[in-house]
Amino acid sequence: MVPIVDTARFLQDLHELRQIGKFKTGVHRPTFSPQDMESRRWLMQRMAEIGLEPSIDGIGNVFGRHKGDGPHLLSGSHIESQNEAGWLDGALGVIGALALARSGLPVDVCAFADEEGHFQIGFPGSRSIVGDLTEEEMDGSRDRTSGTPLREAIANAGLAGIPRMRLDPGRYKGFFEMHIEQGTQLENAGLRLGVVTGIVAIWQWRIVIEGQQDHAGGTTMAERRDAGLTAVRLLAEIDRHFPMLSGERTVWTTGRIALDPGAPSIIPGKADIFFQFRDIDMVVLKRLETGLRALIQESNRRERCKATLHALRLDTPALCDPRMQDALKAAAEQHAPGLWQSMPSGAGHDAQIISQKLPVAMLFVPSIGGISHHWAEDTKEEDLALGAQVLADAAERFLVM
Amino acid sequence: MVPIVDTARFLQDLHELRQIGKFKTGVHRPTFSPQDMESRRWLMQRMAEIGLEPSIDGIGNVFGRHKGDGPHLLSGSHIESQNEAGWLDGALGVIGALALARSGLPVDVCAFADEEGHFQIGFPGSRSIVGDLTEEEMDGSRDRTSGTPLREAIANAGLAGIPRMRLDPGRYKGFFEMHIEQGTQLENAGLRLGVVTGIVAIWQWRIVIEGQQDHAGGTTMAERRDAGLTAVRLLAEIDRHFPMLSGERTVWTTGRIALDPGAPSIIPGKADIFFQFRDIDMVVLKRLETGLRALIQESNRRERCKATLHALRLDTPALCDPRMQDALKAAAEQHAPGLWQSMPSGAGHDAQIISQKLPVAMLFVPSIGGISHHWAEDTKEEDLALGAQVLADAAERFLVM
Repeated sequence: MVPIVDTARFLQDLHELRQIGKFKTGVHRPTFSPQDMESRRWLMQRMAEIGLEPSIDGIGNVFGRHKGDGPHLLSGSHIESQNEAGWLDGALGVIGALALARSGLPVDVCAFADEEGHFQIGFPGSRSIVGDLTEEEMDGSRDRTSGTPLREAIANAGLAGIPRMRLDPGRYKGFFEMHIEQGTQLENAGLRLGVVTGIVAIWQWRIVIEGQQDHAGGTTMAERRDAGLTAVRLLAEIDRHFPMLSGERTVWTTGRIALDPGAPSIIPGKADIFFQFRDIDMVVLKRLETGLRALIQESNRRERCKATLHALRLDTPALCDPRMQDALKAAAEQHAPGLWQSMPSGAGHDAQIISQKLPVAMLFVPSIGGISHHWAEDTKEEDLALGAQVLADAAERFLVM
Repeated sequence: MVPIVDTARFLQDLHELRQIGKFKTGVHRPTFSPQDMESRRWLMQRMAEIGLEPSIDGIGNVFGRHKGDGPHLLSGSHIESQNEAGWLDGALGVIGALALARSGLPVDVCAFADEEGHFQIGFPGSRSIVGDLTEEEMDGSRDRTSGTPLREAIANAGLAGIPRMRLDPGRYKGFFEMHIEQGTQLENAGLRLGVVTGIVAIWQWRIVIEGQQDHAGGTTMAERRDAGLTAVRLLAEIDRHFPMLSGERTVWTTGRIALDPGAPSIIPGKADIFFQFRDIDMVVLKRLETGLRALIQESNRRERCKATLHALRLDTPALCDPRMQDALKAAAEQHAPGLWQSMPSGAGHDAQIISQKLPVAMLFVPSIGGISHHWAEDTKEEDLALGAQVLADAAERFLVM
């Protein structure tokens, strides 16, 4: 049985939500702001209307529990926005989950609090629900913009003293999250849907090169130990060799090259580099690490300035469940034959946290011009509707697998 | 007639001066400080003792005028020090000039004020004497450390209302300045003297590369316009090609690579580079500029990010007078056969200002370990004495050329 999604109602819900905290063509709903709390109350009303049992917990997670028998699915995303940002980032996944429930599927709907990171905790809502957020972390967290303590913001939002809910993994067969792509890969390829293979791991490194600070006038080229020059040569070698070591979707980025002291007439005594690569495949990540270490070793053999490598962050990729992906692919091919692709998510999402407890999958729809985190963010209505229908179809397929 | 320098007295003078503002084994005599003014008064006494007519002018220049017939030479350097710095930087050239005068040579001795740049004017003493310092520049200048206005410091030093002296170019055949090398080239080559060919010109550039700031997770390698990567590739090409374009003593330096915004997970939208080269040969400087422009043109042909070149400073090299160099070479070869070399000065000196009005020449003695602008700065006493003798011999040779 293919569930029939009321796409008109789904789009109507999205547009209704867009009015709350409206900013130009986007929205401004920072976490625990009056507009954000209004959107959470609005969501609980929609849940109740379609027969879900709504609740909000002590970190602001809004939950709509299906009252019937299982096996159940969990679906959702987040409802707050970045400041003066787009109407679809997060909202799409929540309203998409609502559409699944309305179509009759046994789905619990969740809006995880503060995925956008207004407070100094990563993913507090989804981390709380999987049991990975301590009271101490909450005590120490503040709003990055206003400095308001998280506890105070929660109290002002009327949520003080409410317990935080915990996920019952035994209740669910898996978690589906629909989201806008926030990139241009689908648009550039002329595609309408992306079946997410996983959420990439970031391996973030700091490369420190120690040379000898000297006067740029009095020191011959032969005498120099120029840390900046060694940095340029090393980064040029990375540029040359990484394509041969990477996977199909690997990305690598040098975000910062700080030369010390950074003055026009002083030979840099030190270079401090932020370098990262991202992939969903642990084999690729390890191969890139091996390559990076070899290039640094070779640099240290050739150069007069010693380079050292420091690992700042070595995430584990969050892989999407293969059967859930199969369900999404089959549904995508049915509704948009030839117009979908598999692709990793380069950005983080609540699904990567939920993957600690449940099989997860994500469906992307195109972002017009790749714009996101800006009020101009948008997606064609036919792509939004297609996404909701494919999500529902995939959910049904997965439930009977 | 080879003039006989009283090297014992020369060294005694240097050591006496070293006691004024003594700091560890160096000195602390910032411009117009009580210690600096004490050293200027001490210098005027020494000038008077040997028959020169001493004076101090309204910018602090101390001048000792030879009373006999010409043709005359001008010789000197500066007497103030960097903060908590060495005993020879500047002092050597002033006391060396005093030794010339004492040996009977027709030499005027000058200590130019604030060559070390404590105030926000470059070379105020020598620029004043050649007529290249306006009252307005003096009005606007302050001590870089304390913020004290130059006018106030001059008044506190008792120099308010005193006119500033002007150089009479017709009086002099040339200007000799002895100085410590402030580098390790002589020491590393096992040499005792450097005959300066010229004071290098600095051609300082800013290279700005414009790309597209994007999220390092959501943007594929194929989609990126990474300004930092273009910067690395361009700088690697400069590193590869500049050796073929440079002169024997050319130096080139990338002092700063600022990536914007400089965050680990953001593809740099802009790179801002400080790049400079230095040489004494205008032909070499122009060849390097042509090469740099060609490399940037080639970068713009290949890369997705546009690089633009901005000239911040295109100095004219201050070349030393060939006959004065010949005199120094002959004297050096006589007193230290095979133990001298010709070399450019990579750092700035008063001689480059005086070269606007007179033929100039400079003689370098080695700096132990290349240390300068630090209290540990030192030179072997036999090298100091050799320098004074060679300077006097060269002055005599040049006078009769």
